[in-house]
Amino acid sequence: MNEKELVKLLHDLQEKRISPEEAVGQLRRHPFEDLGYARVDHHRSLRHGFPEVIFGRGKTVEQVAGIAERILSHSRNLLITHATPDMYRELAETVAGLTYHEVARCITRRGDDTVYGKGDVLVITAGTSDLPVAEEARVTVEIMGNRAALVSDVGVAGIHRLMAVREQIFNARVIIAVAGMEGALPSVVGGLASCPVIAVPTSIGYGASFGGVAALLGMLNSCSSNVVVVNIDNGFGAGYVASIINRLP
Amino acid sequence: MNEKELVKLLHDLQEKRISPEEAVGQLRRHPFEDLGYARVDHHRSLRHGFPEVIFGRGKTVEQVAGIAERILSHSRNLLITHATPDMYRELAETVAGLTYHEVARCITRRGDDTVYGKGDVLVITAGTSDLPVAEEARVTVEIMGNRAALVSDVGVAGIHRLMAVREQIFNARVIIAVAGMEGALPSVVGGLASCPVIAVPTSIGYGASFGGVAALLGMLNSCSSNVVVVNIDNGFGAGYVASIINRLP
Amino acid sequence: MNEKELVKLLHDLQEKRISPEEAVGQLRRHPFEDLGYARVDHHRSLRHGFPEVIFGRGKTVEQVAGIAERILSHSRNLLITHATPDMYRELAETVAGLTYHEVARCITRRGDDTVYGKGDVLVITAGTSDLPVAEEARVTVEIMGNRAALVSDVGVAGIHRLMAVREQIFNARVIIAVAGMEGALPSVVGGLASCPVIAVPTSIGYGASFGGVAALLGMLNSCSSNVVVVNIDNGFGAGYVASIINRLP
Amino acid sequence: MNEKELVKLLHDLQEKRISPEEAVGQLRRHPFEDLGYARVDHHRSLRHGFPEVIFGRGKTVEQVAGIAERILSHSRNLLITHATPDMYRELAETVAGLTYHEVARCITRRGDDTVYGKGDVLVITAGTSDLPVAEEARVTVEIMGNRAALVSDVGVAGIHRLMAVREQIFNARVIIAVAGMEGALPSVVGGLASCPVIAVPTSIGYGASFGGVAALLGMLNSCSSNVVVVNIDNGFGAGYVASIINRLP
Amino acid sequence: MNEKELVKLLHDLQEKRISPEEAVGQLRRHPFEDLGYARVDHHRSLRHGFPEVIFGRGKTVEQVAGIAERILSHSRNLLITHATPDMYRELAETVAGLTYHEVARCITRRGDDTVYGKGDVLVITAGTSDLPVAEEARVTVEIMGNRAALVSDVGVAGIHRLMAVREQIFNARVIIAVAGMEGALPSVVGGLASCPVIAVPTSIGYGASFGGVAALLGMLNSCSSNVVVVNIDNGFGAGYVASIINRLP
Amino acid sequence: MNEKELVKLLHDLQEKRISPEEAVGQLRRHPFEDLGYARVDHHRSLRHGFPEVIFGRGKTVEQVAGIAERILSHSRNLLITHATPDMYRELAETVAGLTYHEVARCITRRGDDTVYGKGDVLVITAGTSDLPVAEEARVTVEIMGNRAALVSDVGVAGIHRLMAVREQIFNARVIIAVAGMEGALPSVVGGLASCPVIAVPTSIGYGASFGGVAALLGMLNSCSSNVVVVNIDNGFGAGYVASIINRLP
Amino acid sequence: MNEKELVKLLHDLQEKRISPEEAVGQLRRHPFEDLGYARVDHHRSLRHGFPEVIFGRGKTVEQVAGIAERILSHSRNLLITHATPDMYRELAETVAGLTYHEVARCITRRGDDTVYGKGDVLVITAGTSDLPVAEEARVTVEIMGNRAALVSDVGVAGIHRLMAVREQIFNARVIIAVAGMEGALPSVVGGLASCPVIAVPTSIGYGASFGGVAALLGMLNSCSSNVVVVNIDNGFGAGYVASIINRLP
Amino acid sequence: MNEKELVKLLHDLQEKRISPEEAVGQLRRHPFEDLGYARVDHHRSLRHGFPEVIFGRGKTVEQVAGIAERILSHSRNLLITHATPDMYRELAETVAGLTYHEVARCITRRGDDTVYGKGDVLVITAGTSDLPVAEEARVTVEIMGNRAALVSDVGVAGIHRLMAVREQIFNARVIIAVAGMEGALPSVVGGLASCPVIAVPTSIGYGASFGGVAALLGMLNSCSSNVVVVNIDNGFGAGYVASIINRLP
Repeated sequence: MNEKELVKLLHDLQEKRISPEEAVGQLRRHPFEDLGYARVDHHRSLRHGFPEVIFGRGKTVEQVAGIAERILSHSRNLLITHATPDMYRELAETVAGLTYHEVARCITRRGDDTVYGKGDVLVITAGTSDLPVAEEARVTVEIMGNRAALVSDVGVAGIHRLMAVREQIFNARVIIAVAGMEGALPSVVGGLASCPVIAVPTSIGYGASFGGVAALLGMLNSCSSNVVVVNIDNGFGAGYVASIINRLP
Repeated sequence: MNEKELVKLLHDLQEKRISPEEAVGQLRRHPFEDLGYARVDHHRSLRHGFPEVIFGRGKTVEQVAGIAERILSHSRNLLITHATPDMYRELAETVAGLTYHEVARCITRRGDDTVYGKGDVLVITAGTSDLPVAEEARVTVEIMGNRAALVSDVGVAGIHRLMAVREQIFNARVIIAVAGMEGALPSVVGGLASCPVIAVPTSIGYGASFGGVAALLGMLNSCSSNVVVVNIDNGFGAGYVASIINRLP
Repeated sequence: MNEKELVKLLHDLQEKRISPEEAVGQLRRHPFEDLGYARVDHHRSLRHGFPEVIFGRGKTVEQVAGIAERILSHSRNLLITHATPDMYRELAETVAGLTYHEVARCITRRGDDTVYGKGDVLVITAGTSDLPVAEEARVTVEIMGNRAALVSDVGVAGIHRLMAVREQIFNARVIIAVAGMEGALPSVVGGLASCPVIAVPTSIGYGASFGGVAALLGMLNSCSSNVVVVNIDNGFGAGYVASIINRLP
Repeated sequence: MNEKELVKLLHDLQEKRISPEEAVGQLRRHPFEDLGYARVDHHRSLRHGFPEVIFGRGKTVEQVAGIAERILSHSRNLLITHATPDMYRELAETVAGLTYHEVARCITRRGDDTVYGKGDVLVITAGTSDLPVAEEARVTVEIMGNRAALVSDVGVAGIHRLMAVREQIFNARVIIAVAGMEGALPSVVGGLASCPVIAVPTSIGYGASFGGVAALLGMLNSCSSNVVVVNIDNGFGAGYVASIINRLP
Repeated sequence: MNEKELVKLLHDLQEKRISPEEAVGQLRRHPFEDLGYARVDHHRSLRHGFPEVIFGRGKTVEQVAGIAERILSHSRNLLITHATPDMYRELAETVAGLTYHEVARCITRRGDDTVYGKGDVLVITAGTSDLPVAEEARVTVEIMGNRAALVSDVGVAGIHRLMAVREQIFNARVIIAVAGMEGALPSVVGGLASCPVIAVPTSIGYGASFGGVAALLGMLNSCSSNVVVVNIDNGFGAGYVASIINRLP
Repeated sequence: MNEKELVKLLHDLQEKRISPEEAVGQLRRHPFEDLGYARVDHHRSLRHGFPEVIFGRGKTVEQVAGIAERILSHSRNLLITHATPDMYRELAETVAGLTYHEVARCITRRGDDTVYGKGDVLVITAGTSDLPVAEEARVTVEIMGNRAALVSDVGVAGIHRLMAVREQIFNARVIIAVAGMEGALPSVVGGLASCPVIAVPTSIGYGASFGGVAALLGMLNSCSSNVVVVNIDNGFGAGYVASIINRLP
Repeated sequence: MNEKELVKLLHDLQEKRISPEEAVGQLRRHPFEDLGYARVDHHRSLRHGFPEVIFGRGKTVEQVAGIAERILSHSRNLLITHATPDMYRELAETVAGLTYHEVARCITRRGDDTVYGKGDVLVITAGTSDLPVAEEARVTVEIMGNRAALVSDVGVAGIHRLMAVREQIFNARVIIAVAGMEGALPSVVGGLASCPVIAVPTSIGYGASFGGVAALLGMLNSCSSNVVVVNIDNGFGAGYVASIINRLP
Repeated sequence: MNEKELVKLLHDLQEKRISPEEAVGQLRRHPFEDLGYARVDHHRSLRHGFPEVIFGRGKTVEQVAGIAERILSHSRNLLITHATPDMYRELAETVAGLTYHEVARCITRRGDDTVYGKGDVLVITAGTSDLPVAEEARVTVEIMGNRAALVSDVGVAGIHRLMAVREQIFNARVIIAVAGMEGALPSVVGGLASCPVIAVPTSIGYGASFGGVAALLGMLNSCSSNVVVVNIDNGFGAGYVASIINRLP
């Protein structure tokens, strides 16, 4: 409820179009819907330009279906992350138009394919093992109304591979750089790029990679000043914020 | 050197306007200047829209002065971070037009005060102790050609203080949220804002804050999807990337 | 054995109602019962107002049954935490009146449903994934003779959801705030509440949440001074101490 | 602003005793006072029964004096923690009635010495080196209107020393147990006590004590269910929450 | 080969009872036997008073059988730790006289049951969950020729349970104190005992116990000076060194 | 493309043997082959003297087969690490001449068995449990054209076992020292050897070995100056760099 | 108070030689003396064979003098650890017969130089930088009535230096092995020795030694079964427990 | 003493040219010299091709002078690391021909400037702040008889700077790559180079660089297989092992 609505509410009250008690009720009304097991936040659609996303892991298919139904009552697009093939098969029986993205482990429904983003989002990975996280980022970027490209296996140990995609790096409006192990890719990409670089550490690696901590620390300490970081394996988060940046007016 | 320049170079060669050896020389020419103790990167100005910044800590005044002179030969603006009052006093004797920002511990020279950013950058802090880092971010944002505002002491333990600046949060194009201790501010701000939020953990706190690690982990695990993170106390980095985002065409 | 009992014991001795050897025996008698594999502490019932609780994990059904039988010989209420459905089924064959709490993974028998607590205990969670820990806290609070309410999915990224339950927060006598990820909920709740807030970090999250460490550190560094912390996922402990506080005369 | 005040405000509006714009203004009015460098929260006094406390470290004497003046305009009692003797001497020149607690490193002014707490708060320490933290807790407890006692040097390696104060442990309404090194004191005290035990790890120790981490972990893993934990060296926090518990009606 | 044997060897050489080449061969002969996959160290039996022990985990039954056979060719006693019931069943078909200790997960053969130790070794545990580690210590102590007693479930939260076994603590020549969670038992026992206390942290616990790290740190920081520590869950190591101490002449 | 090739290319251009566009194309041509899911780097064969190695874990048999085919089109030798027996069986149906190394979990094909190394590489392990990592190192060393020897179970607790292989240590040109637990082997070997020692920590151990971290730290802090370290369990990496050193002209 | 004394006390009571109240008083009498700032534990002398030791760091000279006086009223020997030269000079003015050990940073007074230990205690160090910790151990061992020898700079990187003192290792009754950096010395010494080895990690080292953590982990993971560990830099603790072992009857 | 010398010794014995007791004496003679506070290892000169190096930190000038004198009695070259200017000034008064390397903080004396290394050693750094560590490596490499070059400020954020020194990278026989912050330099250099790369993490950085841990982890997880790692800030160690590799015959 913004100030304009508040003044209007109070005028309605002064004009006795509503009672004080009704006013209290409206002031109390919350911009979310309570399903018991979850509170769907319809206002987020207005704030961020995209409805609430469903984090599939740890939810039953029934819970996911319930939340999905409520979201689809307000929105034409839907994104479910960390979704298993089984979850997809069961959901597809009751919800039409779903797509399962196997590598990204995401379910989407895309009723609105308008492109809202102003430029291209480039997703770039150090190794092939980083693909699931990178694909989750790409699927997120696309369902939120952006053009996206994905370039993989251009880790810094073969710097000429990375140089070969220099043009794509120069031309992107936002870059998502995904890397495990030492996590050096965002630093090199950040040095080449003129746009913001969102770094995503992945849990790929072994031994002293500590499930992505080595890559995370590398990215936080990047010597390239245009690099920001999200949580380990958080492809969705990177795609989400890349979309918000790309859709800035 | 982009593709267009390369094709031109090769045409010059084919037309024998230059020799193969000259061409090799040009291909070899590097877009930086070697001062012996540092390599000044003039190309970065083109790529990121701002010249190389000087990190003052650990450098002698002579080194800082030398780098500053080279930068000012190409650029009208200058930013020196982690600068002491002594460094300012000595530099001011040879370089005209410098300003010292005491809380931010920065030196600036602003020859070009054009506003390039398209919107407002809001810097917001949890406590008064976070001010040095927040001011460093604000100074960076302004010297890079953006309007900036700073709101302090609105930590989440007094949520009504934060609610009081809700309008500023709604209207910002980029937000920098600075917090030590538990680092919860970016999550709450991210939930209220529709724009990207750059979270800066500070080393403020004691005991199990571990010099900013608690705040850093809190921010990386933020439940708000529009939050990205930079290194502990890295006000400059946050200001830098906020500027790049705000200047996106 | 308190001082009064000791003086009485010694008077009995002086009056030769008992022999010195009997006195030694009584002084030696320990307020617990040795089952071989466990020592049941009947005195704790007097000290804390609730009998020893059984931690079900890592015990065989036979061991749990044995301890349960001894406790029920002295007490009308029983709580078994970290109990599997199988454990419940087997126990239910020999012990009457048991209830299995599926989400909380607890078994209870409640022979005495007197309300001893003086006010309401509010259990509040950041996300739906925190429910198992929150429910364990709620079940504990209730079996120990308190009124409890549970509000879930009011994480700080949607601060208006939390504001909607402000009245419940104002009216509680003790609050248990359960959160994973960045663990910011207790700070915001602590700022709103006038009562003690017991913070429970959960292992919910991924990547740099490190199995609840991020939430734990966030809570230990809370800027709200009325927040205290228990171990990760320790819903029982939070419920236990909340009960003790709520039953303070 | 609670519901009753809101209904009254709206009635005033409906009765045209105030204009809608005035109503918006009142709804906007925030329960804090902005000093520029800090926002003093007068409402906290109502919520927690004690005014905002000043954390002295990292603030100038001028800042502390300014905040102190505002607090004393609403409150008769004042607490400044982490205060140096120099800070005390300077403040004492302008503010009358201050006391400096040397071991606790606190400044207090006590205009209201009413006892609000319902029972006794016992502060108990493992070693003499833990005294500064314990004294900070005791000073906090007393200034907030409680009776407090402090027992020191009763670490668990000499269990008979602890047993000698068993009566005090039995009779306390809240206990604050302060310990460094292995931090075992709260577990033993918790087993003896029938009341809540607030454990404060201290940074006392060397080697693998890691500045209090060993004690912190010991307390979080306490096998006594009535133990809760605050941050390392956080004597003030422990005293604050002990007071809130002790003043519960 | 000690000095006396060396002088004798050289005399033999000088007297031409052996050739220089034979002497070199004898000097080269190593006091171990090479099975290809392992080198059995028969000298350890002389040095430590007990033959090499077999660590069962990660070895095939064939490898264990091979090493066991070689050890039994020199020794009447055998200890295999971290042994599964399956390993026992297979071994028992070819090696006679084996016993399987189910809780301790050890296999022993005891041909020599002489008591070499000079006093009693007391194994004492905080909780019933610590029993596997404690039993491994007890089995080790006994097979190495010592009298041992095991007292369990005397954790510090019920200090009177521990006081009840004070006499056994006073009378022991070496104590092994086994505890998980906060690991406080050795500190209290160390304060009561006059003998060396070997502390064994166990991985029992959850959340911030970090697989035994909390207990380990607690023990390393023990305020009792007669406490020494072995690795997490290392019941065998504690038993081994307790035996060596107890057998000191 | 080295400088000589570049001058030649430019001469071709000046002589109009190729067009500027062709020149751009050649300058663009990258020394790798894009399979879609992976980019095979044929140049590495020239740089390091061995073709790209396939890391088997996390790849499907189809992916491994595809990469293997491309590598074998340029090279006679092949190494696949972290390969399962199943992967071997499937690959062997389509690729001839493969060998499976069970302990090392590697697949090799050796068409070229020339010895390129100038001396002997000694692989030495502390315990039998370190064998898989050590064997991976040995297989790598051999497939890269070196003579290798493996000595196992010579940990520092039985220093005479290590002394028995002193001659092999003296004679090696490069040593790979593999150890878990405290990781002390490389220090002792480094003190005896005159050549570089590559230390490989293994994840063997329990409790406070933290999956190889204890061994890793031990090796990084080695007091022998000729010791360098690779990642935990990285037998392949140790073998690779040992080969490069041994093949130095 | 042991059982015999208790029975006697009760008989006295029964015979009315003392009143019940006197009996309670005696049962209440605690075996320590309260100085206000410290509780001196005279019983420890009986239990451990040595009076309470004064940890000098963090205490004022007055406090140390006070405690020293009380100890010397019951004991002829005195040990003050972590003592500065200034503390020694001031104490020496009021207490006669003190000695200052510069490297060990200890003050001793030795009125009783009886040798109670049954064998020799060998203190052995890896490097010369470990000497302060090793000397603290040696001084402790000697003041507690044992013969001690100290061998330094025999780190494992020069294994022949260690071999040169093999006889001393064979002949010791208890060994204290002191090492920083990788902490490998106790493993090698433990393999050579037939007696218990007390390992003391020191904070010597840099980089990834983490203030002694690398050495600590190395020692906890020692492959020698006769090794036990004390806290980082805890030379006193090692000396204390070595003395207790050496004095075992 | 090698086998040949042993056979000779024994023949001498058999021929009665020496007595058995003399033989024992010779077998006992150790290849080091005991100064009391240090044991100088003259054999290391034979094993590693360079005499023992003096680690200056924590030693008095007298101790350094004593060790230096012994080393110079056997060797013409001397290296003292971690040396202060004061130490240099005092030493220079008694030892002739010393040089102080200010950035590297080393003292050298070079009587023998023969070049023993077979190729060039390239030291390369990411930033100017890494110079002290890099210079220590370069000084070490040169005093050990190698040609060395140092290239600085070629961090991966400006990849074109690194590409500009590609030829030097291609031509080196051994490379030492020094970097703080994210430590990505060795990965990129390793991908370009055909020789071994020794990675040295530095403690340069702030916040989540954790004193070099981020760089260390990055290097251990390098995706370039020819990278090995030494301890944080260990420029000497890197130079030492680079020399050994470069001098391999």
